Amino acid sequence: MIVEGINVIRELLRSNEQIDKIIAEDKPSSDVQILIDRARARRIKVELVDKLTLERIAKTQTQGIIAFIGNYKYAEVEDILNYAKEKDEQPFIVILDGILDPHNLGAIIRTCECAGVHGVIIPKNRACEITSTVYKTSAGALFHIRIAMVTNLTRTIEELKKRGVWTYALEAGEKSIYQADFTYPTALIVGGEGKGVSRLVKESADEVLSLDMYGLVNSLNASNASAIAIYEVVRQRKRK
Amino acid sequence: MIVEGINVIRELLRSNEQIDKIIAEDKPSSDVQILIDRARARRIKVELVDKLTLERIAKTQTQGIIAFIGNYKYAEVEDILNYAKEKDEQPFIVILDGILDPHNLGAIIRTCECAGVHGVIIPKNRACEITSTVYKTSAGALFHIRIAMVTNLTRTIEELKKRGVWTYALEAGEKSIYQADFTYPTALIVGGEGKGVSRLVKESADEVLSLDMYGLVNSLNASNASAIAIYEVVRQRKRK
Repeated sequence: MIVEGINVIRELLRSNEQIDKIIAEDKPSSDVQILIDRARARRIKVELVDKLTLERIAKTQTQGIIAFIGNYKYAEVEDILNYAKEKDEQPFIVILDGILDPHNLGAIIRTCECAGVHGVIIPKNRACEITSTVYKTSAGALFHIRIAMVTNLTRTIEELKKRGVWTYALEAGEKSIYQADFTYPTALIVGGEGKGVSRLVKESADEVLSLDMYGLVNSLNASNASAIAIYEVVRQRKRK
Repeated sequence: MIVEGINVIRELLRSNEQIDKIIAEDKPSSDVQILIDRARARRIKVELVDKLTLERIAKTQTQGIIAFIGNYKYAEVEDILNYAKEKDEQPFIVILDGILDPHNLGAIIRTCECAGVHGVIIPKNRACEITSTVYKTSAGALFHIRIAMVTNLTRTIEELKKRGVWTYALEAGEKSIYQADFTYPTALIVGGEGKGVSRLVKESADEVLSLDMYGLVNSLNASNASAIAIYEVVRQRKRK
């Protein structure tokens, strides 16, 4: 897979991800030169090409540097729970039920990483996979967070419930996010653009929580809605 | 200006905005037909054209309907303060210091409208203006919220301070958003993508507040950062 952009490749070089090759402009900007130096210090193969050649290989705007990495390595749900245990924290998981837009997926992953979420769970079908665009919109956060891909979300939710995790679907409901106690093991379930959380998933969740709405439009975009709920968990846990 | 898309035009028809003309596909979907009927009930001129003609006029994906409206009518800062007074609420203002991406601008406006923000202030220079894309990403929220455009942000901030509004710049700082008291008149200042809040603006703000960060990337996208802070104001005011 190709990943592109200065921020993303900076995070890539900070991670343990295996890098097959880096291609950069032969007249690099100072930001790109720093990354080239870091890559060479790690004995990663760096090829310098002219701007036009780079742009031909690139999928989006390159900012002068491209990296080739293997396909994204998904984690298991178990890895996410173990990671929380290692950090001696109550599990904090975000489940994405059918996010289709790679920009939304990237932005949500970025926010999860900032908020210290232990892992993100996405379904195998009817959802956006990890692509170059997701790497880019995540600003490289993808390299520092566990993402599990599961075949059956409701089964995973049932499993999490058995393991003591409280599962909350974010949807129009009676109860507000401010009424939940997120200091316990928590999984937030965010629905896809337009459709929201699917019926079966909503039914398997412990509770349905809604965001307070005071306008006429009354629908937030998926990544903003997630950010608000994710940081309510952060706030409650910090306060405790 | 052209505005496009079912959600946006639904909100347009709910607003008092003057509509010059609507153009729709001659084989409309049921969603589009509802909008055509509403427009005709309001005696708005509706033209039906074939799909190809519509796509030629459109700026993005049309979803079968386009509306022509006048240029965006900005409000004054005074209008925003008066609106808060009318609603008998403490002013809640969001100031955007140099948001350049129309998708971010639209998403932030959408969140502001949902959160009951009284108005948004944007600077005249070095910032994204209200375009068709902003209308679309705002999901039509633009029709229901006051937006003021000012020539000098720091002067506006000084003016707001004189009027008793507490001004908070969202930036890496010592104090967390959870330590501020947003039940008083509040203006949140959000910085642009990459650059953040500019130095002069930050210096003129009463306080600098930061979002809690627990990861390695430690930078949220502008619209998610805004959403988190905006809803912290909502939470505190609701609790009160």
